[in-house]
Amino acid sequence: MASLSTVVGSQPAIKVIALCGSLRQNSSNRGLIRAATEIAKESIEGLQIEYLDISPLPMLNTDLEVDGTYPPVVEAFRRKILEADSVLFASPEYNYSVTAPLKNAIDWGSRPPNVWGDKAAAIVSASGGSGGVRSQYHLRQIGVFLDLHFINKPEFFLNAHQPPPKFDSSGDLIDAEVRAKLKSLLLALHAFSLRLKRN
Amino acid sequence: MASLSTVVGSQPAIKVIALCGSLRQNSSNRGLIRAATEIAKESIEGLQIEYLDISPLPMLNTDLEVDGTYPPVVEAFRRKILEADSVLFASPEYNYSVTAPLKNAIDWGSRPPNVWGDKAAAIVSASGGSGGVRSQYHLRQIGVFLDLHFINKPEFFLNAHQPPPKFDSSGDLIDAEVRAKLKSLLLALHAFSLRLKRN
Amino acid sequence: MASLSTVVGSQPAIKVIALCGSLRQNSSNRGLIRAATEIAKESIEGLQIEYLDISPLPMLNTDLEVDGTYPPVVEAFRRKILEADSVLFASPEYNYSVTAPLKNAIDWGSRPPNVWGDKAAAIVSASGGSGGVRSQYHLRQIGVFLDLHFINKPEFFLNAHQPPPKFDSSGDLIDAEVRAKLKSLLLALHAFSLRLKRN
Amino acid sequence: MASLSTVVGSQPAIKVIALCGSLRQNSSNRGLIRAATEIAKESIEGLQIEYLDISPLPMLNTDLEVDGTYPPVVEAFRRKILEADSVLFASPEYNYSVTAPLKNAIDWGSRPPNVWGDKAAAIVSASGGSGGVRSQYHLRQIGVFLDLHFINKPEFFLNAHQPPPKFDSSGDLIDAEVRAKLKSLLLALHAFSLRLKRN
Repeated sequence: MASLSTVVGSQPAIKVIALCGSLRQNSSNRGLIRAATEIAKESIEGLQIEYLDISPLPMLNTDLEVDGTYPPVVEAFRRKILEADSVLFASPEYNYSVTAPLKNAIDWGSRPPNVWGDKAAAIVSASGGSGGVRSQYHLRQIGVFLDLHFINKPEFFLNAHQPPPKFDSSGDLIDAEVRAKLKSLLLALHAFSLRLKRN
Repeated sequence: MASLSTVVGSQPAIKVIALCGSLRQNSSNRGLIRAATEIAKESIEGLQIEYLDISPLPMLNTDLEVDGTYPPVVEAFRRKILEADSVLFASPEYNYSVTAPLKNAIDWGSRPPNVWGDKAAAIVSASGGSGGVRSQYHLRQIGVFLDLHFINKPEFFLNAHQPPPKFDSSGDLIDAEVRAKLKSLLLALHAFSLRLKRN
Repeated sequence: MASLSTVVGSQPAIKVIALCGSLRQNSSNRGLIRAATEIAKESIEGLQIEYLDISPLPMLNTDLEVDGTYPPVVEAFRRKILEADSVLFASPEYNYSVTAPLKNAIDWGSRPPNVWGDKAAAIVSASGGSGGVRSQYHLRQIGVFLDLHFINKPEFFLNAHQPPPKFDSSGDLIDAEVRAKLKSLLLALHAFSLRLKRN
Repeated sequence: MASLSTVVGSQPAIKVIALCGSLRQNSSNRGLIRAATEIAKESIEGLQIEYLDISPLPMLNTDLEVDGTYPPVVEAFRRKILEADSVLFASPEYNYSVTAPLKNAIDWGSRPPNVWGDKAAAIVSASGGSGGVRSQYHLRQIGVFLDLHFINKPEFFLNAHQPPPKFDSSGDLIDAEVRAKLKSLLLALHAFSLRLKRN
């Protein structure tokens, strides 16, 4: 039997799938996801982040769809997205836009029936220069068709090349200030996800 | 005393402020707002749309701000936005972006303290060609900073120059199909506004 | 010895590489490239269009770069781009942006040294709805970093699903009006390429 | 009679019109234009920059157009643009896009016949945060319809609030490094303008 506190005070757990736009082994965007996962586990009750690797997905080609079904690796990916409440994109900027592997994963998920619909979402970027600012608005425009609800604030852009170092050589986040900023983004994603989920 | 149904089952009324990006007398975007107001009144319980004229606003110049206060016409505009739950933008496309009067109104509203924050929003466009599709994504990007939550679906783009005529000579909407599409957008805005408001 | 006509009247031939964003066998965007190639051959003197298949390119991962060299298939792709004067993108719209295979090809070409720099470019899109209008502005933004010079007019958006049929079942363009529009785009690309090349 | 050096070696002077998106008296974007004008005069032969004030323009309303003519102040503005070879935009970022006064000036210039067509253009921005990066891509998209040819490199974004101070209290540029960057942008605009003009 559920205890009173469960009935009255508890909230449903929010399940977040985290995707990384870079395939590099030591990607700092992948490092941001590891840090986010730790932060959620240690200090945000009710927020679960699961990393989902997009590298096994084949390049999208609708000729690969047979009788409305997709390759098994694609079906598995789609099922994971479908079961999540929210999506966390760690999206580096390549040539002022999102990366091809990320776009590929997004496009597979949008094949009918679209698995992204009505989820909350947030974006973090570690990149050079302005820290990925240009690519995030491309991702937001893509999200209109997917029917994703992105949080607006805080936005998270990290100039990964600016001293002092933010990541160690394996791509692990080592900067306390960036970690605090990441936590505030996760709290906002959590709150917005709950707000959308309860109705 | 409130009846039981009020207490248990009723929903708060959603107040929508509608803004038109064109200053033209017979603007078809202004016509879309008139039609939306009628539709809400006639057939969407709990959705109130009020048109707010942006033409009296002076061109934004922060030199006009004295001791943190704004010209009276600006203060009145800002108060109206602040009291609304949601915003309906009727935004024609000029040169692939939003119009100057609309941007001006938006910018006045964003002066501290930002009056747009955390409201639901939707966009309708009557324009030539693709019906304003390019300008709407500019408006959505602007909305990230304003902290507006735009509905994603349905999107509403109307090629106003394509036969048969959609508006009469005073800019009143006369097409039943477009009216039905407009209603479905308003229903989506209503539902999303409630969803955000209740939490 | 060069004849007088060569000296006075001739222009350098413009070499265009054409890339298709869709991997589908019967892609209508691929059909647009076939039609463009025919048009250039038959009726635009000094414009040569060569189709370059992007499907063999591996998904970009900078871990694949060894000592500043790229996989052989990537090197071959890069060499072709480098030798061209101009680029013709046939870019369908997936989820309001460019496709992953096209972005992947673009990203490989941008690895140092960038092979796209200072070339003229044009975009054609066959897609549903607005005919790809949203994706083309993403491609133009990407082009800023690549240093591509896109022609502005005419823009070419084709709603490929609107009757009457524009393509036959193998994706060959069968509509005379669309063919004429495509020719006017090629003439503009030719003229702009010459203008940039002569200086 | 033209001297040999005129015939062989000289180039046409490039006339640039400079527009400032901010109406503030001490605008740092206005300061960038003053600095650019000085730099051109002192050290770039054949480049003339003239500042054109957009503040007198009325808010665009096509009801103000009578028999295809525009208000006198608009006609004067349009004539100046028409006579220029190139345009330099000093564009602050308001709410992630261009300012209303700048959009208004652009829209007036685009009324038939469009006076912007086929000119070279460049953008500089002094703003907070990322230095206006988001707004510049909006301006570039607007430029597609206007038929402006923007230079791609260098891009110029200035975080005006970051120490050390870049401007004095009247908005005059006082930073040597920024001045050097501004000069390199002007050289690129000059070169691209010549390239387009000679053909």
